[in-house]
Amino acid sequence: MKTLIIVSHPTLEESETQQFFKAASISEDVTWHHLEEEYPLFNIDSAKELGLLAAHQRIIFQFPFYWYSAPAHLKLWEDQVLDKVGNLLKGKSLGIVLTLGVAQKEYQAGGREEYTISEFLRPYQRIANKFEMEYLPPFICAQFPYQSEEERSQLLISYQQYLTLSRLPSLAERSDWILTKLRKLSQDKPNMEEFSLIITAIEENSYQIEDLTDTLQLMKEE
Amino acid sequence: MKTLIIVSHPTLEESETQQFFKAASISEDVTWHHLEEEYPLFNIDSAKELGLLAAHQRIIFQFPFYWYSAPAHLKLWEDQVLDKVGNLLKGKSLGIVLTLGVAQKEYQAGGREEYTISEFLRPYQRIANKFEMEYLPPFICAQFPYQSEEERSQLLISYQQYLTLSRLPSLAERSDWILTKLRKLSQDKPNMEEFSLIITAIEENSYQIEDLTDTLQLMKEE
Repeated sequence: MKTLIIVSHPTLEESETQQFFKAASISEDVTWHHLEEEYPLFNIDSAKELGLLAAHQRIIFQFPFYWYSAPAHLKLWEDQVLDKVGNLLKGKSLGIVLTLGVAQKEYQAGGREEYTISEFLRPYQRIANKFEMEYLPPFICAQFPYQSEEERSQLLISYQQYLTLSRLPSLAERSDWILTKLRKLSQDKPNMEEFSLIITAIEENSYQIEDLTDTLQLMKEE
Repeated sequence: MKTLIIVSHPTLEESETQQFFKAASISEDVTWHHLEEEYPLFNIDSAKELGLLAAHQRIIFQFPFYWYSAPAHLKLWEDQVLDKVGNLLKGKSLGIVLTLGVAQKEYQAGGREEYTISEFLRPYQRIANKFEMEYLPPFICAQFPYQSEEERSQLLISYQQYLTLSRLPSLAERSDWILTKLRKLSQDKPNMEEFSLIITAIEENSYQIEDLTDTLQLMKEE
């Protein structure tokens, strides 16, 4: 599966969050496509955009909330591209990677932002439905600058999984995903013994989980 | 009260609906401000915009639904102006004049557009609340080209009232509004006897309504 990240951010170079995501997205299956950089004069090339959409199966809109929706560049992209897509998007998936300056809990009745993120994102949900796309649960990253190293490691993994894994990965799928990554790293750096130790540990965990699942299944059948 | 209509429509000259509204908005108390015409190169002048906002008490965002929100020009206006307004908007009112290409009933669960207009407009509602503005119930104009002459006459009056009257005008306020308009017309064209006949009829209606209201009030008190 190929993933297209359509990023809209007017000052991306200064955004620590977006730079983190940019580094995390480097992969042969992922295309990073920053609208403000590509079209500084708002001169969106619809034909090129349609080509990009055709070449990818997962489309991501990635942006910070600017007045409770995407920055103007992504809106212009919508206005100039979406009425030309026809059936091109049918069967693809649409994900939203949303960065927030305030805590996520403020987006609820009684919170400082009053309404839920689901409500604010209705236009994108409707676009996905209209074009018969699968609408993925949005990937929310709130207040990145305040996150600890450990939270960022977790964010990195979740983000990469959001870009490349199926909709709601099971524990087994997520384990497999991490094992594949680790095996590749361990091939690239055979001297790092830690990798094989971690791989062994995760594999043993997986076997144990399988055993437990089988036992439970047997108990149910008896 | 002065009203600023911030219109966003990329092809306004070709829009029968917007031309109708433009003609209907002509008044010394109303400023028509078309963003695409004013800023064809997306070069929004924030200082000028802040001056306009300061000089008006009611702010209207007027636009057709483009992918369930405003066209990109208005979004750019939001991105470039709203973070500079400070307390400027406090106590003013925000209205949305929304034109739709499909019937309004499609905007509900089970309808073709699935979600309500209130949901799609949450970002604007939140903007009004954030700046301590009064959020007016949106003024919706669906499928204007299919409207009859009579519907358009009604639309004209409702639109002018939306621009200039208080939030939810009572019957008496709406009568007064029409009487003021008619008295002015009758001064401008003293030969038109119809005007004074209509004025008399409306005034008599109003007196009758007042009488009935008083009678009801007395019955309640007894």
